[in-house]
Amino acid sequence: MKDVLIVGAGLVGSLLAANLSQKGYRVKVYERRPDMRKQSMSAGKSINLALSERGWKAIDMVGLRERVQSVAIPMYGRKIHDIKGEVTFQAYGLEGQAIYSVSRGELNAVLMDRAEKDLDVQIHFGWKCISVDFERSVAHFEHSETGEQREEVADLIFGTDGAFSQVRADMQKTPRFNYQQEFIPHGYRELLLPPSDTGEYRLEKNALHIWPRGGYMLIALPNLDKSFTCTLFMPYEGEPSFSSIENGEGVDAFFKRVFPDFHAIMPGLEADYHAHPLSDLVIIRCYPWVRHRTCILGDASHAIVPFYGQGMNSGFEDCSVLNTLIDAHDNQWDGILDEFQKTRKPDADAIAELAMRNYIEMRDLVGDERFLLQKKIEARIHERHPDKWMPLYSQVTFSHRRYSEALREGQEQDKIMDEIMDMPDIAQRWDSLEIETKILSAKNR
Amino acid sequence: MKDVLIVGAGLVGSLLAANLSQKGYRVKVYERRPDMRKQSMSAGKSINLALSERGWKAIDMVGLRERVQSVAIPMYGRKIHDIKGEVTFQAYGLEGQAIYSVSRGELNAVLMDRAEKDLDVQIHFGWKCISVDFERSVAHFEHSETGEQREEVADLIFGTDGAFSQVRADMQKTPRFNYQQEFIPHGYRELLLPPSDTGEYRLEKNALHIWPRGGYMLIALPNLDKSFTCTLFMPYEGEPSFSSIENGEGVDAFFKRVFPDFHAIMPGLEADYHAHPLSDLVIIRCYPWVRHRTCILGDASHAIVPFYGQGMNSGFEDCSVLNTLIDAHDNQWDGILDEFQKTRKPDADAIAELAMRNYIEMRDLVGDERFLLQKKIEARIHERHPDKWMPLYSQVTFSHRRYSEALREGQEQDKIMDEIMDMPDIAQRWDSLEIETKILSAKNR
Repeated sequence: MKDVLIVGAGLVGSLLAANLSQKGYRVKVYERRPDMRKQSMSAGKSINLALSERGWKAIDMVGLRERVQSVAIPMYGRKIHDIKGEVTFQAYGLEGQAIYSVSRGELNAVLMDRAEKDLDVQIHFGWKCISVDFERSVAHFEHSETGEQREEVADLIFGTDGAFSQVRADMQKTPRFNYQQEFIPHGYRELLLPPSDTGEYRLEKNALHIWPRGGYMLIALPNLDKSFTCTLFMPYEGEPSFSSIENGEGVDAFFKRVFPDFHAIMPGLEADYHAHPLSDLVIIRCYPWVRHRTCILGDASHAIVPFYGQGMNSGFEDCSVLNTLIDAHDNQWDGILDEFQKTRKPDADAIAELAMRNYIEMRDLVGDERFLLQKKIEARIHERHPDKWMPLYSQVTFSHRRYSEALREGQEQDKIMDEIMDMPDIAQRWDSLEIETKILSAKNR
Repeated sequence: MKDVLIVGAGLVGSLLAANLSQKGYRVKVYERRPDMRKQSMSAGKSINLALSERGWKAIDMVGLRERVQSVAIPMYGRKIHDIKGEVTFQAYGLEGQAIYSVSRGELNAVLMDRAEKDLDVQIHFGWKCISVDFERSVAHFEHSETGEQREEVADLIFGTDGAFSQVRADMQKTPRFNYQQEFIPHGYRELLLPPSDTGEYRLEKNALHIWPRGGYMLIALPNLDKSFTCTLFMPYEGEPSFSSIENGEGVDAFFKRVFPDFHAIMPGLEADYHAHPLSDLVIIRCYPWVRHRTCILGDASHAIVPFYGQGMNSGFEDCSVLNTLIDAHDNQWDGILDEFQKTRKPDADAIAELAMRNYIEMRDLVGDERFLLQKKIEARIHERHPDKWMPLYSQVTFSHRRYSEALREGQEQDKIMDEIMDMPDIAQRWDSLEIETKILSAKNR
């Protein structure tokens, strides 16, 4: 059990390659695309990524914290822009806690460099996986330019080839494989908000900006070059939708009406809007993740919607969990993959659910008075009693608690907070000792 | 819009072919398997089929009621066998209402004959569908013996190629196609209970026999040759399961212990058990069902578990619904397929859910006192006020009510009956006028 083959050199594949190589495995990676480090970044898929605690743990595992920190921008909370352009700030966690805006391409390059240059991983670019023979532990590849065919045998194969995984497609042909692909009714389109004429950020740098509008929303994350990557999430059809604004009042009028403060600072809106493609959002659920000595992880086994900022973080956590199991079993692989999938599947399901809920929260609730007050109360209790009350968002973002446990505890907290929020004079005495006591004793009952 | 291509000559494909040919379309059918009418029936998949009202309506549509009646055996209710071998009878509906046991092969042959011999449908056997080009409305086939390739262009293409549909597999490659395949934890294995030594049925002929045992069950349906096709439904793993009995106490001992009356009449149990394969049960959900002028229907778009006896019936009802739409739109196809999928999808989802629930009912509840009493009360009200109260089972089985409406009304009825069943002395006065009035007035509130 020494030869490892990884299909896909994206974020999770590159990290896994580095980690397994550190542990003494001979690792080869095959990647369908050309080497992104040698050519200009494609605009392709790149919702900016928000790196949080679970991601950092995995980055630590391969010794890259400092390197990644140098290209990451902390965002300490949400700046919520209402329809009049008024802005409210909501901290994500305790003082100093932040999620970090990073560029997908930059981070991927850092991980590839680590794997390839420091850790002797071979990365073969331009090879598309055609099929995997699980019983023989063989993968077949074809070179995208030359058409050359190649087989690779390995002791272990990992499919980290993303939401449209070929490795998983072959698993789908094996008996009793459960599989679901669900496209949500919403798509997204990016916009690039450039630096100001004087070369500065056009919005507060250290925050994630949201323009929540009920059925749709706009968000913005800072880039190192002082631009912001902005993303409009909206249904494909209905009112309003990508279809209705493009065929109706038009993009410029729509933005002016519903995102007036953004419209005022965004030059060349119409052209920029049309320069970016309209992209899908898919949720992938499947099981099992393992066939013989092949295992899928990351988006390949559990692609989620991006609204909790946990897509990459959960994929990275897959690697940490696997790392722990490899150590616990002292590299004896007989039970490792099966234990991995059994342990990890409930957490993948939980974060899939949480991510969908957070979409509703982001677009509907973050503009809601009652919701904002609830968050303020929870934040206060958390600050005063960090050991007794950790809001769900913090559990997911700033802890290593299992997603499935966070989901369950979040449900309990919601029940308690519903009672609290139903108190008639809660807006007046939300920060009283009485409320605090009530919440903490409810927690213990 | 004259040339119709149908992929798959199973039950739904053959019926659809006959119906469209009657309506004046030129219909070609391609079928992967050889002509079943020319060779001995394969044992393959053949849970006996239970034909009910929705199925008959579609059979009427192609003028085959009498022909099918001659090979169908009415089953007026369930014979429930308890663990001591005691038997209770539960009528399915009103006096004279029955579901009909038919052989899948026989019915399919009758439908093919009608399409091919009476209605000029061409059926091409041994051609496997390789792919469909939806934009061009072209399907590619390969002959399973000669390897010959062939293309067929048509104005309309229908995919009736079953739960593992190739037409659907190609749809899965088109943008934003939602898809789910879910294998339930249970599988099934058939047994053939032969006629007695004197050539008679070994069980009451005009009933569906059930041995409900909680997590698993055995059922038996009559055949024309005085045998019964029996099916054991059980989890693959756990206790008890196919795995646990085969590796544990053994098949014979298990049957003797849990199905003693069946064990007593079944000759050569062990050999017969192993002569039949262990088969999967899958639920398929997907949407849309239409791409350009190609539409999938039957199991290809909504395969369900067999526990409501509605798999074939719902596929046949697809054909009736489509038939009605074709007439309503006077063969102007522009809106027909889209209206078909929009109309039919909620009903497909509803019957998928009902079928899973009926599994729980069949294996767990039909042996339960409270449940039996509830059924008795509902049957009585239905008999006395057929216009005011139709039990869910009757709505699904003996009416043409939309499945989605039946599901909703069933939920309302359950609420009412839960209250009734919670009455302390219900077992004594279940048939009183007071209870009847209570139920009917709850219905109207």
